Amino acid sequence: MGLSFSGRKAKGSKAERELIHLLWENGFAAMRAAGSGSTKHPSPDIVAGNGHLFFAIECKASHKLTKYLDKDEISQLDLFANSFGARAIVAIRFDNEQWYFITIPDLKETPKGFAVNYELAKKKALTFEELIGKYRQKRLT
Amino acid sequence: MGLSFSGRKAKGSKAERELIHLLWENGFAAMRAAGSGSTKHPSPDIVAGNGHLFFAIECKASHKLTKYLDKDEISQLDLFANSFGARAIVAIRFDNEQWYFITIPDLKETPKGFAVNYELAKKKALTFEELIGKYRQKRLT
Repeated sequence: MGLSFSGRKAKGSKAERELIHLLWENGFAAMRAAGSGSTKHPSPDIVAGNGHLFFAIECKASHKLTKYLDKDEISQLDLFANSFGARAIVAIRFDNEQWYFITIPDLKETPKGFAVNYELAKKKALTFEELIGKYRQKRLT
Repeated sequence: MGLSFSGRKAKGSKAERELIHLLWENGFAAMRAAGSGSTKHPSPDIVAGNGHLFFAIECKASHKLTKYLDKDEISQLDLFANSFGARAIVAIRFDNEQWYFITIPDLKETPKGFAVNYELAKKKALTFEELIGKYRQKRLT
Protein backbone atom coordinates (compact mmCIF):
# COMPACT_ATOMS: atom_id res chain seq x y z
CA MET A 1 0.00 0.00 0.00
CA GLY A 2 1.13 3.53 -0.69
CA LEU A 3 4.19 2.46 -2.70
CA SER A 4 5.56 5.17 -4.99
CA PHE A 5 5.69 4.50 -8.73
CA SER A 6 9.42 3.74 -8.55
CA GLY A 7 8.71 1.48 -5.57
CA ARG A 8 6.14 -0.46 -7.60
CA LYS A 9 8.58 -0.77 -10.51
CA ALA A 10 11.31 -2.09 -8.21
CA LYS A 11 8.83 -4.58 -6.72
CA GLY A 12 7.91 -5.76 -10.24
CA SER A 13 11.58 -6.20 -11.21
CA LYS A 14 12.30 -8.17 -8.04
CA ALA A 15 9.34 -10.46 -8.78
CA GLU A 16 10.61 -11.00 -12.35
CA ARG A 17 14.08 -11.92 -11.13
CA GLU A 18 12.62 -14.37 -8.57
CA LEU A 19 10.49 -16.07 -11.22
CA ILE A 20 13.46 -16.31 -13.60
CA HIS A 21 15.48 -17.98 -10.84
CA LEU A 22 12.63 -20.47 -10.17
CA LEU A 23 12.47 -21.33 -13.88
CA TRP A 24 16.25 -21.93 -14.14
CA GLU A 25 16.10 -24.12 -11.01
CA ASN A 26 13.52 -26.26 -12.78
CA GLY A 27 15.30 -26.88 -16.07
CA PHE A 28 14.11 -23.87 -18.06
CA ALA A 29 16.24 -21.16 -19.64
CA ALA A 30 14.52 -17.85 -18.92
CA MET A 31 15.26 -14.31 -20.08
CA ARG A 32 14.04 -10.90 -18.89
CA ALA A 33 12.96 -8.42 -21.55
CA ALA A 34 14.45 -4.98 -21.97
CA GLY A 35 12.18 -2.27 -20.62
CA SER A 36 9.01 -1.60 -22.59
CA GLY A 37 9.41 1.17 -25.14
CA SER A 38 12.71 -0.37 -26.20
CA THR A 39 11.19 -1.19 -29.58
CA LYS A 40 7.69 -0.69 -30.99
CA HIS A 41 7.15 -4.45 -31.12
CA PRO A 42 5.26 -6.36 -28.42
CA SER A 43 7.33 -7.99 -25.68
CA PRO A 44 6.34 -10.00 -22.62
CA ASP A 45 8.28 -9.59 -19.36
CA ILE A 46 9.87 -13.05 -19.58
CA VAL A 47 10.39 -15.73 -22.21
CA ALA A 48 11.27 -19.25 -21.05
CA GLY A 49 11.85 -22.59 -22.72
CA ASN A 50 13.13 -26.08 -21.91
CA GLY A 51 13.35 -27.60 -25.39
CA HIS A 52 9.74 -28.79 -25.28
CA LEU A 53 7.70 -26.08 -23.59
CA PHE A 54 7.87 -22.36 -24.32
CA PHE A 55 6.21 -19.71 -22.16
CA ALA A 56 5.70 -15.97 -22.78
CA ILE A 57 5.03 -14.53 -19.34
CA GLU A 58 3.58 -11.23 -18.13
CA CYS A 59 4.71 -10.99 -14.53
CA LYS A 60 2.84 -9.21 -11.74
CA ALA A 61 3.29 -8.71 -8.02
CA SER A 62 0.32 -7.30 -6.13
CA HIS A 63 -0.11 -6.04 -2.59
CA LYS A 64 -3.87 -5.77 -3.16
CA LEU A 65 -6.36 -8.63 -3.58
CA THR A 66 -7.24 -7.60 -7.14
CA LYS A 67 -4.78 -6.81 -9.92
CA TYR A 68 -5.97 -4.96 -13.03
CA LEU A 69 -4.34 -5.55 -16.41
CA ASP A 70 -4.55 -3.27 -19.44
CA LYS A 71 -6.35 -4.69 -22.47
CA ASP A 72 -3.40 -3.62 -24.63
CA GLU A 73 -0.90 -5.41 -22.39
CA ILE A 74 -2.80 -8.69 -22.68
CA SER A 75 -3.40 -8.41 -26.43
CA GLN A 76 0.34 -7.79 -26.93
CA LEU A 77 1.16 -10.83 -24.78
CA ASP A 78 -1.23 -12.90 -26.90
CA LEU A 79 0.25 -11.58 -30.18
CA PHE A 80 3.84 -12.23 -29.09
CA ALA A 81 3.06 -15.74 -27.80
CA ASN A 82 1.21 -16.73 -30.97
CA SER A 83 3.99 -15.48 -33.26
CA PHE A 84 6.75 -16.99 -31.14
CA GLY A 85 5.12 -20.35 -30.58
CA ALA A 86 4.79 -20.02 -26.80
CA ARG A 87 1.96 -20.34 -24.29
CA ALA A 88 0.75 -16.94 -23.05
CA ILE A 89 0.79 -16.89 -19.25
CA VAL A 90 0.07 -14.21 -16.64
CA ALA A 91 2.14 -14.93 -13.52
CA ILE A 92 0.91 -13.24 -10.35
CA ARG A 93 2.16 -13.26 -6.82
CA PHE A 94 0.07 -11.72 -4.07
CA ASP A 95 1.95 -10.63 -0.93
CA ASN A 96 3.20 -13.58 1.13
CA GLU A 97 1.73 -16.06 -1.33
CA GLN A 98 3.10 -18.50 -3.88
CA TRP A 99 3.09 -17.78 -7.62
CA TYR A 100 -0.10 -18.37 -9.58
CA PHE A 101 -0.14 -18.87 -13.36
CA ILE A 102 -3.23 -18.05 -15.34
CA THR A 103 -4.05 -18.23 -19.05
CA ILE A 104 -5.74 -15.36 -20.91
CA PRO A 105 -9.15 -17.09 -21.30
CA ASP A 106 -9.28 -17.54 -17.51
CA LEU A 107 -8.77 -13.83 -16.76
CA LYS A 108 -11.87 -11.83 -15.76
CA GLU A 109 -12.89 -9.22 -18.33
CA THR A 110 -13.56 -5.70 -17.09
CA PRO A 111 -14.78 -2.65 -19.06
CA LYS A 112 -11.17 -1.41 -19.44
CA GLY A 113 -9.29 -4.69 -19.71
CA PHE A 114 -8.84 -7.66 -17.44
CA ALA A 115 -8.52 -8.42 -13.76
CA VAL A 116 -7.33 -11.25 -11.61
CA ASN A 117 -8.19 -11.43 -7.95
CA TYR A 118 -7.01 -13.73 -5.24
CA GLU A 119 -10.16 -15.89 -5.26
CA LEU A 120 -10.05 -16.27 -9.06
CA ALA A 121 -6.36 -17.19 -8.90
CA LYS A 122 -6.99 -19.87 -6.27
CA LYS A 123 -9.84 -21.32 -8.37
CA LYS A 124 -8.54 -21.06 -11.95
CA ALA A 125 -4.78 -20.60 -11.86
CA LEU A 126 -2.03 -23.21 -11.78
CA THR A 127 0.73 -23.44 -9.23
CA PHE A 128 4.27 -23.59 -10.59
CA GLU A 129 4.36 -27.38 -10.16
CA GLU A 130 1.04 -27.69 -11.98
CA LEU A 131 2.23 -25.39 -14.78
CA ILE A 132 5.27 -27.47 -15.59
CA GLY A 133 3.69 -30.75 -14.38
CA LYS A 134 0.51 -30.32 -16.39
CA TYR A 135 2.36 -29.85 -19.63
CA ARG A 136 4.89 -32.55 -18.74
CA GLN A 137 1.91 -34.90 -18.22
CA LYS A 138 0.52 -33.94 -21.62
CA ARG A 139 3.80 -34.86 -23.28
CA LEU A 140 3.77 -38.34 -21.72
CA THR A 141 0.27 -39.27 -22.83
CA MET B 1 36.90 4.09 -35.06
CA GLY B 2 37.57 5.91 -31.82
CA LEU B 3 34.02 5.56 -30.55
CA SER B 4 33.65 6.09 -26.80
CA PHE B 5 32.37 3.21 -24.67
CA SER B 6 28.88 4.75 -24.49
CA GLY B 7 29.06 5.28 -28.27
CA ARG B 8 29.80 1.60 -28.80
CA LYS B 9 26.96 0.61 -26.49
CA ALA B 10 24.52 2.83 -28.38
CA LYS B 11 25.72 1.34 -31.68
CA GLY B 12 25.12 -2.17 -30.29
CA SER B 13 21.61 -1.28 -29.13
CA LYS B 14 20.75 0.23 -32.50
CA ALA B 15 21.95 -2.94 -34.24
CA GLU B 16 19.84 -5.09 -31.88
CA ARG B 17 16.74 -3.03 -32.60
CA GLU B 18 17.33 -3.27 -36.36
CA LEU B 19 17.70 -7.05 -36.20
CA ILE B 20 14.55 -7.38 -34.08
CA HIS B 21 12.64 -5.37 -36.68
CA LEU B 22 13.99 -7.61 -39.49
CA LEU B 23 12.88 -10.72 -37.59
CA TRP B 24 9.35 -9.38 -36.99
CA GLU B 25 9.08 -8.43 -40.69
CA ASN B 26 9.82 -12.06 -41.53
CA GLY B 27 7.30 -13.80 -39.31
CA PHE B 28 9.33 -14.17 -36.11
CA ALA B 29 8.50 -12.78 -32.67
CA ALA B 30 11.73 -11.38 -31.26
CA MET B 31 12.58 -9.94 -27.85
CA ARG B 32 15.54 -7.90 -26.57
CA ALA B 33 17.07 -8.95 -23.27
CA ALA B 34 17.39 -6.69 -20.26
CA GLY B 35 20.94 -5.42 -19.79
CA SER B 36 23.49 -7.97 -18.70
CA GLY B 37 23.94 -8.07 -14.95
CA SER B 38 20.17 -8.02 -14.55
CA THR B 39 20.32 -11.57 -13.13
CA LYS B 40 23.20 -13.96 -12.59
CA HIS B 41 21.79 -16.31 -15.23
CA PRO B 42 23.06 -16.37 -18.83
CA SER B 43 21.13 -14.32 -21.37
CA PRO B 44 21.65 -13.76 -25.09
CA ASP B 45 20.92 -10.34 -26.61
CA ILE B 46 17.85 -11.54 -28.51
CA VAL B 47 15.53 -14.54 -28.45
CA ALA B 48 13.32 -15.17 -31.48
CA GLY B 49 10.83 -17.82 -32.54
CA ASN B 50 8.22 -18.48 -35.22
CA GLY B 51 6.53 -21.59 -33.83
CA HIS B 52 9.01 -23.91 -35.54
CA LEU B 53 12.44 -22.29 -35.28
CA PHE B 54 13.95 -20.75 -32.16
CA PHE B 55 17.12 -18.66 -32.17
CA ALA B 56 19.24 -17.35 -29.27
CA ILE B 57 21.28 -14.53 -30.77
CA GLU B 58 24.37 -12.64 -29.64
CA CYS B 59 24.33 -9.47 -31.69
CA LYS B 60 27.42 -7.51 -32.79
CA ALA B 61 28.09 -4.45 -34.89
CA SER B 62 31.70 -3.83 -35.86
CA HIS B 63 33.45 -0.90 -37.51
CA LYS B 64 36.63 -3.00 -37.76
CA LEU B 65 37.24 -6.02 -40.00
CA THR B 66 37.72 -8.38 -37.04
CA LYS B 67 35.39 -8.68 -34.04
CA TYR B 68 36.63 -10.44 -30.89
CA LEU B 69 34.21 -12.30 -28.63
CA ASP B 70 34.83 -13.30 -25.00
CA LYS B 71 34.99 -17.02 -24.31
CA ASP B 72 32.54 -16.51 -21.44
CA GLU B 73 30.05 -14.68 -23.66
CA ILE B 74 30.00 -17.55 -26.14
CA SER B 75 29.81 -20.30 -23.52
CA GLN B 76 26.84 -18.50 -21.92
CA LEU B 77 25.15 -18.22 -25.32
CA ASP B 78 25.67 -21.95 -25.82
CA LEU B 79 24.35 -22.80 -22.35
CA PHE B 80 21.25 -20.64 -22.76
CA ALA B 81 20.49 -21.99 -26.24
CA ASN B 82 20.86 -25.63 -25.16
CA SER B 83 18.60 -25.19 -22.11
CA PHE B 84 16.01 -23.17 -24.00
CA GLY B 85 15.87 -25.37 -27.07
CA ALA B 86 17.15 -22.73 -29.52
CA ARG B 87 19.94 -22.55 -32.09
CA ALA B 88 22.89 -20.46 -30.85
CA ILE B 89 23.72 -17.79 -33.41
CA VAL B 90 26.21 -14.90 -33.50
CA ALA B 91 24.81 -12.12 -35.68
CA ILE B 92 27.36 -9.62 -36.95
CA ARG B 93 27.07 -6.57 -39.12
CA PHE B 94 30.20 -4.87 -40.41
CA ASP B 95 29.84 -1.20 -41.38
CA ASN B 96 27.81 -0.71 -44.55
CA GLU B 97 27.28 -4.46 -44.92
CA GLN B 98 24.37 -6.86 -44.56
CA TRP B 99 23.91 -9.08 -41.50
CA TYR B 100 25.88 -12.31 -41.26
CA PHE B 101 24.83 -15.21 -39.02
CA ILE B 102 27.41 -17.65 -37.78
CA THR B 103 27.20 -20.72 -35.54
CA ILE B 104 29.62 -21.31 -32.65
CA PRO B 105 31.57 -24.15 -34.33
CA ASP B 106 32.28 -21.83 -37.27
CA LEU B 107 33.86 -19.09 -35.10
CA LYS B 108 37.65 -18.85 -35.08
CA GLU B 109 39.21 -19.76 -31.73
CA THR B 110 41.77 -17.35 -30.29
CA PRO B 111 43.85 -17.69 -27.08
CA LYS B 112 41.33 -15.54 -25.17
CA GLY B 113 38.08 -16.54 -26.85
CA PHE B 114 36.75 -16.32 -30.36
CA ALA B 115 36.94 -14.03 -33.34
CA VAL B 116 35.02 -13.45 -36.52
CA ASN B 117 36.48 -11.41 -39.34
CA TYR B 118 34.94 -10.20 -42.54
CA GLU B 119 36.56 -12.89 -44.73
CA LEU B 120 35.43 -15.67 -42.35
CA ALA B 121 31.90 -14.25 -42.29
CA LYS B 122 31.72 -14.15 -46.10
CA LYS B 123 32.94 -17.78 -46.29
CA LYS B 124 31.18 -19.48 -43.36
CA ALA B 125 28.24 -17.34 -42.28
CA LEU B 126 24.67 -17.34 -43.53
CA THR B 127 22.78 -14.34 -44.84
CA PHE B 128 19.41 -13.65 -43.23
CA GLU B 129 17.59 -15.32 -46.11
CA GLU B 130 19.84 -18.36 -45.81
CA LEU B 131 19.35 -18.50 -42.04
CA ILE B 132 15.58 -18.69 -42.25
CA GLY B 133 15.60 -20.38 -45.68
CA LYS B 134 18.07 -23.06 -44.72
CA TYR B 135 16.07 -24.20 -41.73
CA ARG B 136 12.81 -23.85 -43.63
CA GLN B 137 14.34 -26.19 -46.24
CA LYS B 138 15.32 -28.65 -43.53
CA ARG B 139 11.77 -28.72 -42.23
CA LEU B 140 10.42 -29.65 -45.66
CA THR B 141 12.73 -32.61 -46.21
